[in-house]
Amino acid sequence: MVKRTMSTGEERTKEYYEKSVEYSKFYEGKIQVIPKVPVRSLDDFSIWYTPGVAGVSRLIAEDNDLSFEYTSRWNTVAILTNGTRVLGLGDIGPEAALPVMEGKALIFKYLGGVDAFPLPIRAKEKEEVVDVAKRIAPTFGGINLEDIRHPDCFYILETLREELDIPVWHDDQQGTAAATLAGLLNALKIVGKKLDEVKIVMFGAGAANIANARLIMAAGARPGHMIMIDSKGTLHAERADIDKLALTHPWKYKFALNTNEEKVTGGLDEAIAGADVLVAASRPGPGVIKKEQIAKMNDNPVVFAEANPVPEIWPYEAKEAGAKVVATGRSDFPNQVNNSLVFPSVFRGVLDVRARKITDEMAVEAAKELAHYAEERGVDEDYIIPTMEEWEVYPRVAVAVGLKAIELGLARRKLSRQELYEHVRDVIEASRDTLGTLVGKNLIRMPPQ
Amino acid sequence: MVKRTMSTGEERTKEYYEKSVEYSKFYEGKIQVIPKVPVRSLDDFSIWYTPGVAGVSRLIAEDNDLSFEYTSRWNTVAILTNGTRVLGLGDIGPEAALPVMEGKALIFKYLGGVDAFPLPIRAKEKEEVVDVAKRIAPTFGGINLEDIRHPDCFYILETLREELDIPVWHDDQQGTAAATLAGLLNALKIVGKKLDEVKIVMFGAGAANIANARLIMAAGARPGHMIMIDSKGTLHAERADIDKLALTHPWKYKFALNTNEEKVTGGLDEAIAGADVLVAASRPGPGVIKKEQIAKMNDNPVVFAEANPVPEIWPYEAKEAGAKVVATGRSDFPNQVNNSLVFPSVFRGVLDVRARKITDEMAVEAAKELAHYAEERGVDEDYIIPTMEEWEVYPRVAVAVGLKAIELGLARRKLSRQELYEHVRDVIEASRDTLGTLVGKNLIRMPPQ
Repeated sequence: MVKRTMSTGEERTKEYYEKSVEYSKFYEGKIQVIPKVPVRSLDDFSIWYTPGVAGVSRLIAEDNDLSFEYTSRWNTVAILTNGTRVLGLGDIGPEAALPVMEGKALIFKYLGGVDAFPLPIRAKEKEEVVDVAKRIAPTFGGINLEDIRHPDCFYILETLREELDIPVWHDDQQGTAAATLAGLLNALKIVGKKLDEVKIVMFGAGAANIANARLIMAAGARPGHMIMIDSKGTLHAERADIDKLALTHPWKYKFALNTNEEKVTGGLDEAIAGADVLVAASRPGPGVIKKEQIAKMNDNPVVFAEANPVPEIWPYEAKEAGAKVVATGRSDFPNQVNNSLVFPSVFRGVLDVRARKITDEMAVEAAKELAHYAEERGVDEDYIIPTMEEWEVYPRVAVAVGLKAIELGLARRKLSRQELYEHVRDVIEASRDTLGTLVGKNLIRMPPQ
Repeated sequence: MVKRTMSTGEERTKEYYEKSVEYSKFYEGKIQVIPKVPVRSLDDFSIWYTPGVAGVSRLIAEDNDLSFEYTSRWNTVAILTNGTRVLGLGDIGPEAALPVMEGKALIFKYLGGVDAFPLPIRAKEKEEVVDVAKRIAPTFGGINLEDIRHPDCFYILETLREELDIPVWHDDQQGTAAATLAGLLNALKIVGKKLDEVKIVMFGAGAANIANARLIMAAGARPGHMIMIDSKGTLHAERADIDKLALTHPWKYKFALNTNEEKVTGGLDEAIAGADVLVAASRPGPGVIKKEQIAKMNDNPVVFAEANPVPEIWPYEAKEAGAKVVATGRSDFPNQVNNSLVFPSVFRGVLDVRARKITDEMAVEAAKELAHYAEERGVDEDYIIPTMEEWEVYPRVAVAVGLKAIELGLARRKLSRQELYEHVRDVIEASRDTLGTLVGKNLIRMPPQ
């Protein structure tokens, strides 16, 4: 892996921007809705539509869950956003969020065989997002929340998980967290440390890092050994704004009470001394985390620098400062913490067993399966998490998550491992074959040169 | 055309019910969401998704209307329903409405090349439907309302037409009305009568017939010469419940004031004497309208019996009673008043010019173009409206509607007739080629035998 300078990274990003604008104009969008049934003659409309379809509607009217058997609902996911925190662009609104959600839908289909529909909505307030999600739920087998400002996203996710009986997932929280946890589990194997013993610093207290912390705890890390740092410094039970946090940000408040048992005050400089693991999801770097700070960590430290598009510290700098394993959000460095490894598979799994929820336990299961997969192939400092090219990882994770849902009693449909695996594999293959065929026939054109 | 008995009709309907249930189970739904861009390698995700997509989002954030140029929005329509009046099945709820909306999406794509997404929502109250429609609007180029109880549907359509700047259409009202008007225009040519002179009885005062009446008036019929009949008899300005109507049903109230200048009281028997045209959209027959009633009409009467699945009177009975031209909603009799001739074309037209509205004038234009098309081929008693097999009719109607939108200053994009025609044709052909290719490759299988 060659060293990259900041300017190379910025130039590449600019190229991607330009290509994306050019291609989006050329294709006029990225997704389409098409039939998955044949039309042999127009008489078939009497089957697919009136009068025949009334027979199906009458069945479902007797038992709403039959909508998972007789319609596309079982495989359909809403990508729901209010556009209040889109990528690094902030509150740019639903129209401007649409191209991002289309891209996500494309990945959902290509990697997971999921029919995902972008649904940016005009709804600034969290209660409004919850209201719309509940109203649209009858159409969908699951809801993927996306790019919603925090802390609203915590309230929205928790409320919907509670009140709906289809899986609800906030990818900015859980997708990243599952990928982080997978990488962390393998990184700790490499450095020979145990999750329930290490000292972990969480730098940044936004949606991604709060979710990271929660999932890392759910997997066995000791809360007392963790220190979370927000823009005001370390969280602890005696911080000056603790009463205010209780009211304005109950999630951060909980962390303040439960973590940082030594009540370390100050900022990253103070917290990082002797830490085994640093998980940063704060603001784009480089230079947000300094080499001198990494140098203060315990032996063989593990560093996750997840800011996009530029990590808080360049991986080679972290290594120079002593980091043993470094992961980022970028595809051009080793160890990409990539939620695209997670969301298509997790939804594939829960959809195929018609799950009612995605619990933290299921997200941990996804992370463990990701980690196992990489471990089977042999982990090292530059390979703690599978890459997107490792096709077999998607069905593996899907099956693990689906079986977990069955085990937890959250599945409407019980399949054996083998049945589930075959179904998962067939659905993903069909989606890729469909795209390949349309490209082969020039019904989807190649981009202009 | 062979005579059919009631039992034959019922048996056929039952067969369609059974096939629809069997096939829906086999295919597990009727529509899917797929990419319309190639994935040459996983690196393309950096264009379609992060980081590249941020370039597109930034553009749209500057001008929301660019979402019509850089995303699939321009071709995407929501099929929005609350399931309160699904087909003849009543208030069966959103889940049970889903198979119907999927069927509609299939027709939208197959005949109009439109990416239509079914969106049944849990929202009984009309204000709730309006609220959801306004919130989801940023994702869509248009909204097709469907199967919403009346009179709520009038309020919802009027409010959304007023408040949104994308086309909103209620197919149960306007689709049927445009097809009815098209047939009526040609039927009157056959019997040599003029729209602004004939006496018209509207039997039934639900969504379909109120819309029929409105569009027929918009095309030139004289309100005073029309009589509308609801379950309580003829509407007129002095009816006992007129004050109540003003409060509970302002649309019916308006008809009561403006129509029936002779203030005919009673029911169909009284109203139909001497009528030139009967347009019935009331409740399934047969026997709802009797031969003796048709016999009371003026010379060469025209009868539209639009109830589904069985018309208010069988066409051969109406003919035996003297009807010159008879139209129904059924494909197994001549002169099918078929909204599938209308909605795919109307949306094709408005989407291609990025229209902000669909006005009544545009719906009348669709009807006139439908009528012209049939007239060019030679109308007769058994051919007053094109059939679905006449493929050329869809682009013709789309172009007429799109040009009308441009003329009215309601289009975001101005195209010449030729440009519009070519675009319309290309989009429709591509959608049919896509389906044909996938069927040819067995990626969409034939149904089980």
